[in-house]
Amino acid sequence: MSKPRLRLAIDMDEVIADACSAQRTWFRETFGYDWSDTELQGRHFRDLVTPDEFAAMETMLHQGDFFATLSVMPGAQEAISALCETCEVFITTAAMEYPASCAPKFAWLREHFPCISPLNIVFCGDKSILAADVMIDDNLRHFRRFQGQGILFTAPHNMSDIWNPRAGTWQDALTIVDEIDGKR
Amino acid sequence: MSKPRLRLAIDMDEVIADACSAQRTWFRETFGYDWSDTELQGRHFRDLVTPDEFAAMETMLHQGDFFATLSVMPGAQEAISALCETCEVFITTAAMEYPASCAPKFAWLREHFPCISPLNIVFCGDKSILAADVMIDDNLRHFRRFQGQGILFTAPHNMSDIWNPRAGTWQDALTIVDEIDGKR
Repeated sequence: MSKPRLRLAIDMDEVIADACSAQRTWFRETFGYDWSDTELQGRHFRDLVTPDEFAAMETMLHQGDFFATLSVMPGAQEAISALCETCEVFITTAAMEYPASCAPKFAWLREHFPCISPLNIVFCGDKSILAADVMIDDNLRHFRRFQGQGILFTAPHNMSDIWNPRAGTWQDALTIVDEIDGKR
Repeated sequence: MSKPRLRLAIDMDEVIADACSAQRTWFRETFGYDWSDTELQGRHFRDLVTPDEFAAMETMLHQGDFFATLSVMPGAQEAISALCETCEVFITTAAMEYPASCAPKFAWLREHFPCISPLNIVFCGDKSILAADVMIDDNLRHFRRFQGQGILFTAPHNMSDIWNPRAGTWQDALTIVDEIDGKR
């Protein structure tokens, strides 16, 4: 009997959807911030703006429409199409901080990742509820109670975090997934 | 070291939210159906109406607002309040067939089950992605690939399904969960 297909739990923001660039643009257009890439490394937006400005961004995110406008991360579509051929791919995104994001996130996924079945989309908060072999995420905290192998997807905010394996690109992620699958 | 708290994955429709009664009322008011309890046993609405009538219900469900109006299942609030004291409780509901249901379902949960953290709410499709010790659900199919123990919550449509353990009420469910927790 062949082994069951590898089950992947893949995050959205900063992994397949470029929320960071869109937030950066929003902060520039709304409050005039013009950070360099270096200034963003290892930092979250809340460390770079006033509490009122951060609250204004939260209000904007709570409306949900922002999530419909995000660009796809480079290489994500090709990589996920390839993964769908050999693995069970779930998109597992923390949506409960902004519940109005669910419908726009769903529509965005249907538009940009039609190979993902709607039944394999998961909106959650605490990702310790997920059962998968591999999780690809930009937030280390989701790996703490995860029973599988976490792959940290590089984002500006996590540049100083120590984790192995780390994927800087979707090509890296494919290579790491392939290695994990081969060792099962 | 004490054992970790039992992790529960609890469904919404027919388990904590009475979708069946509301659909029954909708079919009565819209198409004049007046089924007895016996007529509903072991059957789904799609078996009892014409394809066009079923499609009309699907259209209504796709609008999402229906899910904001559901009654709470008897005993569910007291039981879940008690479970929240001793267990990690997640609400895990299949929402991807009706993505517009996410926001009304979220609001409904915040109103009727404020003890459930928003971070413990999961909207999904294929529930094999869930990692928990116990799943309480009215659909047997979700137990097939679940790594924990399924408890079938009795609903009209599943009366003929064979599964053990089965909970006819929330009091039953509490007793079964307590037994499972005691045996760990």
